[in-house]
Amino acid sequence: MSGRQGAKPVIHAFAGGKLDRRAELRQTRAPRAVVKLAGDRAVVTGQEEGVLKLALFSEEAGPEAVHLGVEEDGTQVMADRIREEPLPEGCQLIDLRSLAMQGLIGTAELSLLAQARSLLFWHERHGFCANCGARTTLMDAGYRRDCASCKAQHFPRTDPVVIMTVSGPEGVLLGRGHGFLPRVYSALAGFMEPGESIEEAALREIFEETGIKALEVRYHSSQPWPFPSSLMIGCLARCEGGCIRIDESELEDARWFARSELVAMLAGTHEGGLKVPRPAAIAYHLIKAAVEEM
Amino acid sequence: MSGRQGAKPVIHAFAGGKLDRRAELRQTRAPRAVVKLAGDRAVVTGQEEGVLKLALFSEEAGPEAVHLGVEEDGTQVMADRIREEPLPEGCQLIDLRSLAMQGLIGTAELSLLAQARSLLFWHERHGFCANCGARTTLMDAGYRRDCASCKAQHFPRTDPVVIMTVSGPEGVLLGRGHGFLPRVYSALAGFMEPGESIEEAALREIFEETGIKALEVRYHSSQPWPFPSSLMIGCLARCEGGCIRIDESELEDARWFARSELVAMLAGTHEGGLKVPRPAAIAYHLIKAAVEEM
Repeated sequence: MSGRQGAKPVIHAFAGGKLDRRAELRQTRAPRAVVKLAGDRAVVTGQEEGVLKLALFSEEAGPEAVHLGVEEDGTQVMADRIREEPLPEGCQLIDLRSLAMQGLIGTAELSLLAQARSLLFWHERHGFCANCGARTTLMDAGYRRDCASCKAQHFPRTDPVVIMTVSGPEGVLLGRGHGFLPRVYSALAGFMEPGESIEEAALREIFEETGIKALEVRYHSSQPWPFPSSLMIGCLARCEGGCIRIDESELEDARWFARSELVAMLAGTHEGGLKVPRPAAIAYHLIKAAVEEM
Repeated sequence: MSGRQGAKPVIHAFAGGKLDRRAELRQTRAPRAVVKLAGDRAVVTGQEEGVLKLALFSEEAGPEAVHLGVEEDGTQVMADRIREEPLPEGCQLIDLRSLAMQGLIGTAELSLLAQARSLLFWHERHGFCANCGARTTLMDAGYRRDCASCKAQHFPRTDPVVIMTVSGPEGVLLGRGHGFLPRVYSALAGFMEPGESIEEAALREIFEETGIKALEVRYHSSQPWPFPSSLMIGCLARCEGGCIRIDESELEDARWFARSELVAMLAGTHEGGLKVPRPAAIAYHLIKAAVEEM
């Protein structure tokens, strides 16, 4: 399902959900299974051959529970926040990043958690009407909040982010943000702004962060990133090289990487210990695709 | 700048801005030009060879003005709402859809208006903190609103929408929404939801609206759509055909169109008077691309 003809399709972590979202069932409350989260952490259980499963609670969902979709057998799956209650025996809370990065849970379950986490976070932070300040009420099983005072309707947000490698005569341009783990370099990225296309946003971000004027931007693939509700839009950019001028408010470092260095970084065998993000992040796949074109 | 190799790059209406956004200048207030809008309508002036120009006001920008970017000569361009004041002689208010659809203004100016319209609308509807209900204050020259009470920071939203044609053995699948102009058929479209990739969102929307299970989705191009702040993500989907089952809450009609019919619709010569959207809409270009692949 990648946009690149001939390229191997990639289903990134947090995508690949198997539930039928069935928007028309959001009004009903069929027999249900409820997944529970506390912020970034999900309640998981057991360990069969090293893989954790989502804990599915069969109790009545609370008033702030959100509809996720319907399983093949017709079970409505919802998500709710866990509050004070002790966890059932054999259950534990694990954060979504660990579940993804360490491959602790299946693709479809991780995607379901991405959907749940983004929706629940949005409700936590949107209890009031941005238009008039009054309290709002959860509607449509979690896909809307209504203001009884000014009648405004509010919808969950998804924030598009462009993320891209830049290939030039000197190699592939990667950067290090201030919060990165030690020795990790990754694709450049930034939130899209109003009034620009994906390709324009990529060119703007590359120039803002590194001073490099790229010439061409191609879409590669996309990934939902539920921290809290980004859509990572992965692109491959090309440039004719140039002098890197780092925006120090955004980046700690940025430089060109030669093919041999990138191959080692992707394999985890770089002599200097430099790394790229893990395969659960779209950046890994963008860097891999850029290397394949070198 | 399209994602499709070999395809002719398309800069869609509302993209193609020429201003340097220069985020780092958002704190300064250099000599400036202010464009003014009243809701969907912009203040435009004169008519040289049939093309209107944006009216640029040189006065001090108001406290709710937003930074758009910097022109080549260093002029900071901002946008502000027009309120009660009478328009200067030779100026008029024209809505953005007309400016785009009728080609009344240049590409770069239209893109600047898209940016202005999305930002100004967001501020109009976000005077209060969604987290605690207190009043918020415009910061960073319009790219943030801060809550002094709970310290939450709020950023302008951009809502990703997938829009796609579906090609199958029986032709190209197009639909008619309830609010469409008479006899217009267009690409299917819908807002993305949390926890899905672009390709998954396209497949979901196609199935929800028409009951058709598409197999393949390829990214084509994107367009900022400032009504009020969408990002149209254009894709081409393929399917093996199937029975159309319309979601009547979303669509008035959907059907397969043969190549000859689409060619006539694109040219404005359809015998039955059927139409596709104008070239200012990404849908026109998606339909054209789908026809070229038939």
